[in-house]
Amino acid sequence: MKFRCEKNKLAEAISVVQKAVSTKSPMEILHSILITAKENQLTLVGTDIDLSIETKIDAIVEEDGIIAVDSKFFGEIVRKLPNSSIKIEKKDKNINIKCEKTEFTLLANLNVDEFPTLPDINENLVFTVNQKLLKNMIKGSIFAIAQDETRPILTGILFEIEGNTLNLVALDGYRLAFRSEFIENENSLTAVIPGKTLSEMSKILSDEEDNVNITFTQNHILFNLGDTKIISRLLEGEFIKYNSIIPKEYNSKITVKRTELLECIERASLMAKDGNTNLIKFDINDENIVITSNSQLGMVREELNIILQGEGLQIAFNSKYLIDVLKIIDENEISLEFSSSVSPCLIKNNENTKFTYLVLPVRLLNSN
Amino acid sequence: MKFRCEKNKLAEAISVVQKAVSTKSPMEILHSILITAKENQLTLVGTDIDLSIETKIDAIVEEDGIIAVDSKFFGEIVRKLPNSSIKIEKKDKNINIKCEKTEFTLLANLNVDEFPTLPDINENLVFTVNQKLLKNMIKGSIFAIAQDETRPILTGILFEIEGNTLNLVALDGYRLAFRSEFIENENSLTAVIPGKTLSEMSKILSDEEDNVNITFTQNHILFNLGDTKIISRLLEGEFIKYNSIIPKEYNSKITVKRTELLECIERASLMAKDGNTNLIKFDINDENIVITSNSQLGMVREELNIILQGEGLQIAFNSKYLIDVLKIIDENEISLEFSSSVSPCLIKNNENTKFTYLVLPVRLLNSN
Repeated sequence: MKFRCEKNKLAEAISVVQKAVSTKSPMEILHSILITAKENQLTLVGTDIDLSIETKIDAIVEEDGIIAVDSKFFGEIVRKLPNSSIKIEKKDKNINIKCEKTEFTLLANLNVDEFPTLPDINENLVFTVNQKLLKNMIKGSIFAIAQDETRPILTGILFEIEGNTLNLVALDGYRLAFRSEFIENENSLTAVIPGKTLSEMSKILSDEEDNVNITFTQNHILFNLGDTKIISRLLEGEFIKYNSIIPKEYNSKITVKRTELLECIERASLMAKDGNTNLIKFDINDENIVITSNSQLGMVREELNIILQGEGLQIAFNSKYLIDVLKIIDENEISLEFSSSVSPCLIKNNENTKFTYLVLPVRLLNSN
Repeated sequence: MKFRCEKNKLAEAISVVQKAVSTKSPMEILHSILITAKENQLTLVGTDIDLSIETKIDAIVEEDGIIAVDSKFFGEIVRKLPNSSIKIEKKDKNINIKCEKTEFTLLANLNVDEFPTLPDINENLVFTVNQKLLKNMIKGSIFAIAQDETRPILTGILFEIEGNTLNLVALDGYRLAFRSEFIENENSLTAVIPGKTLSEMSKILSDEEDNVNITFTQNHILFNLGDTKIISRLLEGEFIKYNSIIPKEYNSKITVKRTELLECIERASLMAKDGNTNLIKFDINDENIVITSNSQLGMVREELNIILQGEGLQIAFNSKYLIDVLKIIDENEISLEFSSSVSPCLIKNNENTKFTYLVLPVRLLNSN
């Protein structure tokens, strides 16, 4: 094996496939990147079995071949090389890397045959989504996935495609995130994609208007970005019927500026941190909302102008769950809908239905 | 006690005095900031006994008084308040903080009488130094102080004032940093200032051409920046006679581009990290220097053009010590002076004598 390629292209390709490499795996071969040189193209692959990333770059290949290199070490070497042409050659048991007056000789002690083969996916059922839009939908829902593994299905995000609508849903028993966008499509499908896959994906997705093609199989999802393919297993099992959780009616609805509400809650939560309860109380009246929190350190009282439709209400929350939601929303005009002091609160935008967030209240001992 | 002041000014003053507050101290009162309101001025003080910082800001004081507030908690509250006027009042056992529609009530459970009094320093022996220059000198020497406490004097930096020269010297047994600048002055003095003091100081010093007045007493140093005073104890004991360590002559001198040498050493040290030896070898010839490193992972060879005066040489180093020095120097034209493969290497600038760095080599088993 012998090829030449540009340092910057190789360094970027490494950083893409590294996102699938698990340095903690007990299988040493999974710490590595597989590099295949063939027909003036390099194919780099990184995988942790559940998630695999493959990317291709141009190269001048003088001799075809395959090598496996330690992802972290090889990545550090390439990143620190001068911005110039790199020559890589496998000679006997050594991998030789030359760039200007620098020469590395690495022992090729990884067996390429042990590297897992990627699932073979027939790209026939293809949806196309704008990368920027998908990235935004992932960012707007991923914070609500379950962090513990007691119900593995909740560590993923539900992808629900119905006609021209793509919905992403995440929930963890305390809050729910629902994002919805229009897409060009005619099929229907639901699948649950691991949170880790989407977290790494959103680092690779571009902020531009490029598209990503998505293919589902029984067990896998394939994101095709052109030069880069991301393949992930799907989570098995039924996702929770989220529609039945979201209340359709309300008794109280307030309209409020998102940034103002966020600042009030962040200040109130300073007091609520003591004892780790994060408990803050809302007292909703005709013209304002009074937010209070008490702890051993003292107390805090915030007042904020609102527009109220319906009845006043007293309700308490874990401030963290509200802060997570209010930070992720871009729009500043939002509404909060309440049914009672022990029912979930819905956070929406007045102008469109692109998102709905649900947060459960904290039931106080003196609540009715 | 009752006063009003601007949020931004108070937040900035807190962040200045917080640099002296130790949140790990077993004495709870040392976690706090002392605020004295008097004659339309607030004085804030933070201290960990060894290091004390005092700063003053304007305020509208309606009633004089003193409070102690938890540095971290009070700082978080003030930073999160709206950019507006803050009213603070002590009523009975509570401290009340009002800003627009926000109201915090904190329990005043800290006893102001327990707060240590600052050493009383008569500012008569005053040196004046440009803040930017001093900041740069500290940055250029502090990395070389000893990290362990076996010889406490080496955890500080020597300030040596002789006529119109200010020298800062730090050394840890493996390397030495010497910085020297011209100052307007007629006195002579030496003192050793704790590294922690200078590390926090350099965060407060401005990048502009403002001056700082420095007063020494038997046990303390006072930096007066105008509104802010920083008082630190001095380290006791004799500093090492550093002049006798620095070789006056050399057998080999190379002139090299700093950034090129740094990049070569950083790449070579990737290989040297394995086994934590950081060992790299220099082979200095008439026209170039060859830098190599070997480990279980493989080997690396770097070649760099130099100008050599004197004899060729083979010498080995812990790459970390060279990298620390090469990163801290601003100039790109540097020289390295060697006497033998077991003698210290001096790193200097060809054009001025504002710095000298010394790094000990690693003695190899096969060295002569």
